[in-house]
Amino acid sequence: METKLKNIHIERLKDRFQQMASIGRTESGGVTRLALSPEDREARELLVHWMQKIGLATRYDDVGNIYGRLEGREKNADAVLIGSHIDTVPNGGQFDGTLGVLAALEVVQSIKEQQKELKHPVEIVSFTNEEGARFTPQMLGSGVVANEFTREYVYERKDMKGLSFYDQLKKIGFVGSEANRLKNGKAFLEFHIEQGPVLEAENLPVGVVEGIAGFAWMEVIINGQSNHSGTTPMHLRQDPLVAAAAIIKELHDFAKNKKDGTVITTGRIQAFPNIINAIPSQTIFSIDVRHAERKSLESTIAEIKKIVEQHAGEVKMDMTTEEIWTKHPVSFSPKVISVIEQICKQQQTPFKRMISGAGHDAMYMNAITDTAMIFVPSVAGKSHCKEEETSWDDIEKGMNILYDTVCKLANGDSESL
Amino acid sequence: METKLKNIHIERLKDRFQQMASIGRTESGGVTRLALSPEDREARELLVHWMQKIGLATRYDDVGNIYGRLEGREKNADAVLIGSHIDTVPNGGQFDGTLGVLAALEVVQSIKEQQKELKHPVEIVSFTNEEGARFTPQMLGSGVVANEFTREYVYERKDMKGLSFYDQLKKIGFVGSEANRLKNGKAFLEFHIEQGPVLEAENLPVGVVEGIAGFAWMEVIINGQSNHSGTTPMHLRQDPLVAAAAIIKELHDFAKNKKDGTVITTGRIQAFPNIINAIPSQTIFSIDVRHAERKSLESTIAEIKKIVEQHAGEVKMDMTTEEIWTKHPVSFSPKVISVIEQICKQQQTPFKRMISGAGHDAMYMNAITDTAMIFVPSVAGKSHCKEEETSWDDIEKGMNILYDTVCKLANGDSESL
Repeated sequence: METKLKNIHIERLKDRFQQMASIGRTESGGVTRLALSPEDREARELLVHWMQKIGLATRYDDVGNIYGRLEGREKNADAVLIGSHIDTVPNGGQFDGTLGVLAALEVVQSIKEQQKELKHPVEIVSFTNEEGARFTPQMLGSGVVANEFTREYVYERKDMKGLSFYDQLKKIGFVGSEANRLKNGKAFLEFHIEQGPVLEAENLPVGVVEGIAGFAWMEVIINGQSNHSGTTPMHLRQDPLVAAAAIIKELHDFAKNKKDGTVITTGRIQAFPNIINAIPSQTIFSIDVRHAERKSLESTIAEIKKIVEQHAGEVKMDMTTEEIWTKHPVSFSPKVISVIEQICKQQQTPFKRMISGAGHDAMYMNAITDTAMIFVPSVAGKSHCKEEETSWDDIEKGMNILYDTVCKLANGDSESL
Repeated sequence: METKLKNIHIERLKDRFQQMASIGRTESGGVTRLALSPEDREARELLVHWMQKIGLATRYDDVGNIYGRLEGREKNADAVLIGSHIDTVPNGGQFDGTLGVLAALEVVQSIKEQQKELKHPVEIVSFTNEEGARFTPQMLGSGVVANEFTREYVYERKDMKGLSFYDQLKKIGFVGSEANRLKNGKAFLEFHIEQGPVLEAENLPVGVVEGIAGFAWMEVIINGQSNHSGTTPMHLRQDPLVAAAAIIKELHDFAKNKKDGTVITTGRIQAFPNIINAIPSQTIFSIDVRHAERKSLESTIAEIKKIVEQHAGEVKMDMTTEEIWTKHPVSFSPKVISVIEQICKQQQTPFKRMISGAGHDAMYMNAITDTAMIFVPSVAGKSHCKEEETSWDDIEKGMNILYDTVCKLANGDSESL
């Protein structure tokens, strides 16, 4: 058993949260800190200031990813990487992303204060534009590090106003050198809120994340026959909204009955012309389907298409199903997962292995180094909104796991695993 | 049997249609002639010009309803009224409303040319703002005539830009005297396109309209729990769109299985926040329910509310059902219906008795005089769009029924019925 030294100073973290969340605080109580905005710049400068204040060597790369490095005993050893992002969605919460960065800062500061002599360097990373709320797609910063995107592709991304990623990065003064980019690491750890209701429902403070679900985004377009709501008998209708309703309900029940972790969601629906006294001419709705295993995901996608086709045949309406975006599932490093689990047991912190249904920078980092994530519970499963909340107790428990995991990995203690 | 005198000059009607449809013709091929717009003014002036040209005494009343009167043998006898409206919805068709007015003009012109000496006067009426597309609610002109609305209420109606009915009526120069208003009549006949698919499906050129279905417009608001689409397991969801889908489908099937003429339509649906990767927090959808009999309509409304409540109980979500607008069914004059039927038989024109699912000026006129309508088929049931179409053959058949009905009623031949 470890002695009960205080590795995590939760009051210091709270204080930093208060400062960070004031940058971009909205009237309604949320936080709007879009990537490469003036608020993002202010938050970045504060982060660099904190990193430097605790004695870390800071740098930023050509897409604006920020690094703060604590050297280890062996100068050229690969670094243990910890990080996440500090950009937010519009009117988002204070924890998402920011927690992973500020937790990394606290862990590294504590290691420094305790004058631990770790074998490997420890490096904090704050990735640019994880949310994709300003520049699409998501995770541009970690995507460049993992060679998922070229720098040119990222530089040319435009926001809704037509402003380019490069111009905005330059404007906030964070165009660094490509040589500063992270190239590899001993391991990557991302500490994050769950953004789902599972840990809270099972009353667990920590989730050991084994991987990230793959997903497909699809769009179904149904063409019916618009007609007057009062003059068209039920048996002479071709109502594309009723057809959509039947499919949406069936897909929901289908996923629910599978009980294998598959989730299917229709978040977006539009009926045209969308007036009270006309049968719609067309209905368009989205499907978001996710699963941890590629084969299952693929068979579910095929199943969804089959369900739509069956409905099209039954009601004799024209339906098309288009895959808009597909992302394969990611499995994290069994080695890192096992270290985290071991530490949970040592600290007697209840946990469960789980899959992340949402994408994270860890998804791309997994391609270049041994990666895993630690989740802490989200109150009511909420995120990306002002109600986003995690108890400080759970954060402290999770950070103690993070602290020991970083130390163990940076000491090379996991080599024997 | 009637001798085959030519009562209806279809080429003359076509010619007038061409002129009338050019007023407000849109690029896409529809017609936009909103009530009290410059286009409505031009169409009104053309109509008055035509009325005067064939020798009718014209006038307009305090809400802009236009009248053209052909005197009968008995000066003070009640007039047989024929009419409809010439305003359109945005990008509507050329027939809706306008057909009833131009058909009336043709019938009266033909009566004049044939120097028929009718006992009762015949009066053409063109009502203001039937569509309700510019000023809500619908049928303001006939509503004032039937004392459903006060003049003050109508004058204060505002369009989307905040312009008042009165100011716009004044601007187009059609504020007449209250003394000019229609007060009563021997009968009212409205000749109209069906706006539904029934006559076409049954291959009938004429519908004898017994009444207008009553309807209720309702709105259902379902509050669920918004959450991330990827991180929320199916069994922990409260998805208001899935709940809405189940209700929409059930209401459709419920109406379809009743097979008593009940129609239920959801034309409008909105999900919030309506993004692909979030379970919606709220879904709102409309219900339009219609039936020819008041008791049936009322029991169906109660049934709909019960279905929503059952779903709310099952899925444990907060649902509210609000009645936005209700209109009781209207039954037309059995006497006039019987005259029309008799003439259909005489002319060997196949017909069916039917209920109008849509509202018409005849609905209000029914309150002050013996009323009925004659329908002609709509190709593919379409109206309120550029595809709105009725064959000239069917129009001619229908107008021949109208002609003889007007003559019979105006001769007082129906007194014995």
